[in-house]
Amino acid sequence: MLPALPEPQPSQPPSAAEHRDTRGMPDVLDRYPVPVPRTLDGVLGLRLLEAADGEARGEARYAERLCQRFGVVHGGAYAALAEMVATEATMVAVWPQGETAMGMSNDTSFLSPIRSGTVHASARALHRGATTWVWAVEHRDDDGRLCAVSRVTIAVRRRRPEPGDSA
Amino acid sequence: MLPALPEPQPSQPPSAAEHRDTRGMPDVLDRYPVPVPRTLDGVLGLRLLEAADGEARGEARYAERLCQRFGVVHGGAYAALAEMVATEATMVAVWPQGETAMGMSNDTSFLSPIRSGTVHASARALHRGATTWVWAVEHRDDDGRLCAVSRVTIAVRRRRPEPGDSA
Amino acid sequence: MLPALPEPQPSQPPSAAEHRDTRGMPDVLDRYPVPVPRTLDGVLGLRLLEAADGEARGEARYAERLCQRFGVVHGGAYAALAEMVATEATMVAVWPQGETAMGMSNDTSFLSPIRSGTVHASARALHRGATTWVWAVEHRDDDGRLCAVSRVTIAVRRRRPEPGDSA
Amino acid sequence: MLPALPEPQPSQPPSAAEHRDTRGMPDVLDRYPVPVPRTLDGVLGLRLLEAADGEARGEARYAERLCQRFGVVHGGAYAALAEMVATEATMVAVWPQGETAMGMSNDTSFLSPIRSGTVHASARALHRGATTWVWAVEHRDDDGRLCAVSRVTIAVRRRRPEPGDSA
Repeated sequence: MLPALPEPQPSQPPSAAEHRDTRGMPDVLDRYPVPVPRTLDGVLGLRLLEAADGEARGEARYAERLCQRFGVVHGGAYAALAEMVATEATMVAVWPQGETAMGMSNDTSFLSPIRSGTVHASARALHRGATTWVWAVEHRDDDGRLCAVSRVTIAVRRRRPEPGDSA
Repeated sequence: MLPALPEPQPSQPPSAAEHRDTRGMPDVLDRYPVPVPRTLDGVLGLRLLEAADGEARGEARYAERLCQRFGVVHGGAYAALAEMVATEATMVAVWPQGETAMGMSNDTSFLSPIRSGTVHASARALHRGATTWVWAVEHRDDDGRLCAVSRVTIAVRRRRPEPGDSA
Repeated sequence: MLPALPEPQPSQPPSAAEHRDTRGMPDVLDRYPVPVPRTLDGVLGLRLLEAADGEARGEARYAERLCQRFGVVHGGAYAALAEMVATEATMVAVWPQGETAMGMSNDTSFLSPIRSGTVHASARALHRGATTWVWAVEHRDDDGRLCAVSRVTIAVRRRRPEPGDSA
Repeated sequence: MLPALPEPQPSQPPSAAEHRDTRGMPDVLDRYPVPVPRTLDGVLGLRLLEAADGEARGEARYAERLCQRFGVVHGGAYAALAEMVATEATMVAVWPQGETAMGMSNDTSFLSPIRSGTVHASARALHRGATTWVWAVEHRDDDGRLCAVSRVTIAVRRRRPEPGDSA
C-alpha cells in the first residue's frame, strides 16, 4: 500500500512586492523578460530567502511538482534549487558592478531521499574570482539531515551598462 | 529592448495512454504514487522518447516554465532532463529483474544557451554494473549544437518483488 | 619516434612501523600487492595523517613532482590526494567488517594555485551508507587559503573474509 | 612520529627533441620553469601523443607508480592524465594567440579497474569558448574497454605577450 501524497500546490503567483523582498535586486527585476512566477523557479516553487557576503539560503516546499513518480524529491529539483541560489546570489554581488552571472556547471550528489516538509538549501561561496564564482550548496530536510550537496560554478561576465550601475 | 517570449504552456496533461507509450513500463505505471503529469517531469514537460539497450532519448520543448528569468533554459532543466532520462532508461532495464534505480549523482556542464525550439537529450550508458549505471547525456538544440552535457550515476538496488518479475 | 620513458622509481621504502602509524590498518598492510612507497601515493609523496569517525586529513609537500611545468601544483595532484584520503579513510572504517572500498568518482575544482609549502587536505564524510560513502575534501595552503575542493564517492563492497575480521 | 619522505626523483630527462615531438609547443618549451621529466606528468609517465583541432590523445603505461596499493590504477592517475591532456591540448590551440590555459575542474568517474597494459586517453573538445574549453576524456585499456571518463573544464586567459605570438 503506497502512501497518500499531499496535493500539488500550483503556484498562486506571489505579488511583485514579494519577489522584490526575496530577490534582492528590486531595481532591475521588472526588466527581466520572464516574470519569476512563470519561470522554472516559479513553477517549481524554488525560493531565494537571502543572499549576502558570499552566503545564501533558499528553499522549496515538498509538493508533487518537485518529485519524481515515486514521490521523492526529484534529483533535478536539488540541482535546480542550487543553480538558482548560486546564480542569484552571485548576481546580487556582481550586478551593481556592471556584470552578470550565468551557470557553468552543476555537480549534485544525492545522499538521502526527502518525502515531506521543505528542502532547505544553504550556499557558501568557496571562491569569488573575477570571472568565476564557485559555490557549495547543502540541501537539508526539516530535521537538518544532509540530503544532497551541489557544487555550482558561475561565470561572471561584463554586461551592457544600465542606469544605476556603479562606475 | 528585450525580446518577446512565447507564452508558458501549462501542461494539458497527457492521457494515461500517452504516458504508457513514452514510458515503456506500462505494467507498473499505475502503481506509482504520483501520476507523471503531476511530477516535476510532467510540470516541466520533460519527456522520455525511447530507452533500450543502453541508449535513450528525451526532450523538453522550450517554454517559460523551462527557463530562468532571462528567458534562457534553466541549468536545472538540463539536469532534470538528464536525471529523468538516465533513471527511466535504467529502470526499463533492471525493473524486470526485481531491481529499481535511483539517482546518485548528476554532473552537468552548460555550454551554450537555448532560447527557443526543443532541448533534445540523447543518453548513452557508459557502464552497466550490478550496482551502478553511469550515463553520458548530450543536450542539443534544434540545429544539433551541443548546449549542455550531463554525467548521471544511477544506483541499482533490489526492490520488493512484484507479480510479473522475472525469476 | 616517441621517447623512451623513465623507469618507475621505487625510492627508499619507509619502515613498516612508519606506515602503521600513518595508515591505520596495521594488520593487513603487509599483504597488499604494492608497497606504499612504490605506489602513486608514495611516488608523489601523498600522505594520510589521520582518519577516524568520518573525518580525515592528508597532505602533500610542494615539490616539482607534484607540479605541472609552470611550477604550480598539478590538478591531478589534488584529485589524487583527495582520492587517497577518502579511500583510505573509508577503508579504515569498513575493513574490519569484512568490506573494502574503491573509488567511484572524483570531482575536483581548482580555486587558487599553490606554488610552495604544503597542500593540506581535510576530508569530511557527508554520507556513510551501506554501499557508498561520499566525502567532501578541502585543500588549503599554508596560509589556510582554500585552493581546491573535491567531492569523492567511494563504493563499499564485501570482500573475501580474512583472519581478524569482525563477525 | 611521521616518516621522512623520499626525495623527488628526477630521472633521466628525455632530450629536448623528444619533448618537441610530443608536446607541440617547441618554441616555448625551454622557458617553462619545470622540465617535464621532473613534473608530475614525467614522474608518473603521463604522455601526450597528439593534439589538434579539438581532439587529443595521451597514454600512461601500467606501472606500480601509477597504482594504489592493490595494484590497480589509482583514481588520481586517470584524473591527472585527463587534466594533462586537456590542458596541453588547449594550450596548443590558444598559446599562439597570446593566451594560456589552466584547469578549472576535473570530474572523473571510475568504471572498471586496469591492472596491466596501457591507459589510453582520448579527448574531444565539447566546447571551445573565448574563456573556457570543456573536454570529454575517455580512458580505455588495451582491449578498448572504457575504464574511466573525465570531464575537464579549462580556463583560457590572456598571458603576457612573448616573441612569436600572433598579432
